Amino acid sequence: MFSAADTGFMALALQLAELGRYTTSPNPNVGAVIVKNGQIVGRGYHKQAGGPHAEVFALQEAGSDARGATCYVTLEPCSHHGRTPPCAEALVAAGISRVVIAMQDPNPQVAGKGAAILRNSGMQVDIGLLDTQARALNLGFLSRMERQRPYVRLKLAASLDGRTALANGDSKWLTGEAARADVQHFRAQSCAVLSTATTVLADNARLNLRAEQLQQDIGRLDSGELRQPKRVILDRNGLLKHDLAIFSDGGEVLLCVSKLENDRQLPNIARQIHCPLNNDAQFDIAALLQHLALREQVNTLWVEAGATLAGTLLQLKLVDELIVYLSPKLLGNAAQPLAVLPQYTALTQVPELSWSDIRVVGQDIRLTANLL
Amino acid sequence: MFSAADTGFMALALQLAELGRYTTSPNPNVGAVIVKNGQIVGRGYHKQAGGPHAEVFALQEAGSDARGATCYVTLEPCSHHGRTPPCAEALVAAGISRVVIAMQDPNPQVAGKGAAILRNSGMQVDIGLLDTQARALNLGFLSRMERQRPYVRLKLAASLDGRTALANGDSKWLTGEAARADVQHFRAQSCAVLSTATTVLADNARLNLRAEQLQQDIGRLDSGELRQPKRVILDRNGLLKHDLAIFSDGGEVLLCVSKLENDRQLPNIARQIHCPLNNDAQFDIAALLQHLALREQVNTLWVEAGATLAGTLLQLKLVDELIVYLSPKLLGNAAQPLAVLPQYTALTQVPELSWSDIRVVGQDIRLTANLL
Repeated sequence: MFSAADTGFMALALQLAELGRYTTSPNPNVGAVIVKNGQIVGRGYHKQAGGPHAEVFALQEAGSDARGATCYVTLEPCSHHGRTPPCAEALVAAGISRVVIAMQDPNPQVAGKGAAILRNSGMQVDIGLLDTQARALNLGFLSRMERQRPYVRLKLAASLDGRTALANGDSKWLTGEAARADVQHFRAQSCAVLSTATTVLADNARLNLRAEQLQQDIGRLDSGELRQPKRVILDRNGLLKHDLAIFSDGGEVLLCVSKLENDRQLPNIARQIHCPLNNDAQFDIAALLQHLALREQVNTLWVEAGATLAGTLLQLKLVDELIVYLSPKLLGNAAQPLAVLPQYTALTQVPELSWSDIRVVGQDIRLTANLL
Repeated sequence: MFSAADTGFMALALQLAELGRYTTSPNPNVGAVIVKNGQIVGRGYHKQAGGPHAEVFALQEAGSDARGATCYVTLEPCSHHGRTPPCAEALVAAGISRVVIAMQDPNPQVAGKGAAILRNSGMQVDIGLLDTQARALNLGFLSRMERQRPYVRLKLAASLDGRTALANGDSKWLTGEAARADVQHFRAQSCAVLSTATTVLADNARLNLRAEQLQQDIGRLDSGELRQPKRVILDRNGLLKHDLAIFSDGGEVLLCVSKLENDRQLPNIARQIHCPLNNDAQFDIAALLQHLALREQVNTLWVEAGATLAGTLLQLKLVDELIVYLSPKLLGNAAQPLAVLPQYTALTQVPELSWSDIRVVGQDIRLTANLL
């Protein structure tokens, strides 16, 4: 069904899609390539929600060459009238004769309907080329659509002996400048950052995106195009006061409370969101993540918090990726632990992971693992 | 002084030297190449203490071609009558006209005297080609000669959160089969393994070399040529009884005691060695290491022990390499620590390392770091 040339053109469409990774959310990353007689005549990628879709850019570039051409697109063309007209209809109108699609759109508003419009017009439609790669482009969007929760990356920084801070709380600077800049890249690609009032208060943390720390691969974007992730802060006891740095700039601050207080005065940048309590009178984190997906359109959640929230997320199996920056230091047995977990009595009970990436980041090592 | 061809021939001599890394100790690894008119006419490496030196093998192969040839040797040829006659004299007798030496022998019995014999015979002698690489071949031998202590590798196995066992002591199997086989390679290249009675008793550990677990790169050796490292066990309270597995096979067991007991009955495989106590009435580990170098000819020491001995060695800065097998598991904050260290109050006080190697070993990651 797919030739080597098909694979090459789809790989290019995937590369184009990736260009939108700092800007498209809550929309998915999509890339499109139009090919006529073996020549590329149109290219496009989706850059920003509300802006044109990848297929539209590619059709614009192709012009009348689109007639009789093949369109390679990394996600099924949309069928619904959203903020832009449906791409499936645009492809039909332009006279495209074949569409190669990496993966079906999991969005229930599309899910097969786009492909049906194309097929009904008499077009050849082939689905499934490089679908694994296409899924990897949109882990967050797919998680929101398929699981009704964000894709969760839990970030931790520790010494080689797994300690995050000295007994007195000192952790400045456990990791080096390169690791801290690396964190900015993840924040820049995340819809929201999750943390706790305790963590925010400990360092008067802003948890915002500092564009000046981002490295070159983001250089083609204007800093105005970068989005500040929302900051979602567990603040059950209303500890965060107006004068904190987190309220001075950056994205919206969503204060998680168990009871909305309508008369509470908050900085303009902040608002309350309700998170129910579980049977142990703790925040129901699973419910919070569902709320963030369904109500706040959070595709990807970047968690920067302490050992307690880390342990909770791990026990609930709500972590997709664990990212640990390992500093070449030893803080010793009196220092603070990486994750608060139960006292296990057998190795068969402990959370298990599989390594997915290992790399040197400046003076530190970044270990990425998936929770099994 | 050195041509590109010189560098190539010395690199070959270094490769030859490495072939002896499982068998030469307490002698150094040495390789030699003899070249006449651009052609290699002789090759040799030192395989076993008491056996011929690298130069002798190379001269044997070269035969009469040695006359007027150049000899590349990774360590200064010996000048003293040990178990074999001095190589410097053999090179002179064979009519070699130039000797290129990677590094001077740090052994005070040689140290420049070998080169002097060669020069006095009218030969051209050039020293210092690829000396860094030559030193790296013999870290243990050089440590014993230059610092009067072994080169110390501290091995630890931990979960991603830096824990070596559950609170109840369970650690079987924290790391996978590949990591355990990797440990065998290090044991095979070590003169001695250092551990404690507590560690030996916990698993009835043998700490010996299991040839069947070694991988292919050792395949050209007969298992009879492999040496069993000595097992040096801190056993201050005489806890190790005759029926333990450690006494059933493997290398000699050296039981460290603070007072030699002449009437103590021990298995044939075991003997006591004296280790003085320090002011805190603990074993003086620095004195023990000196003893192991000077009296037991231990070049390289492989430490497999618990968090207490690990912490002591780290605090005394007696660790050259820290080797941590990191398992993709999380044991939690109740589990056992990697190293017992003081309660530090500032990050400037903690032991710092630099990464020297990172690799995947089966399901685990092996991190190697040098103590700064």
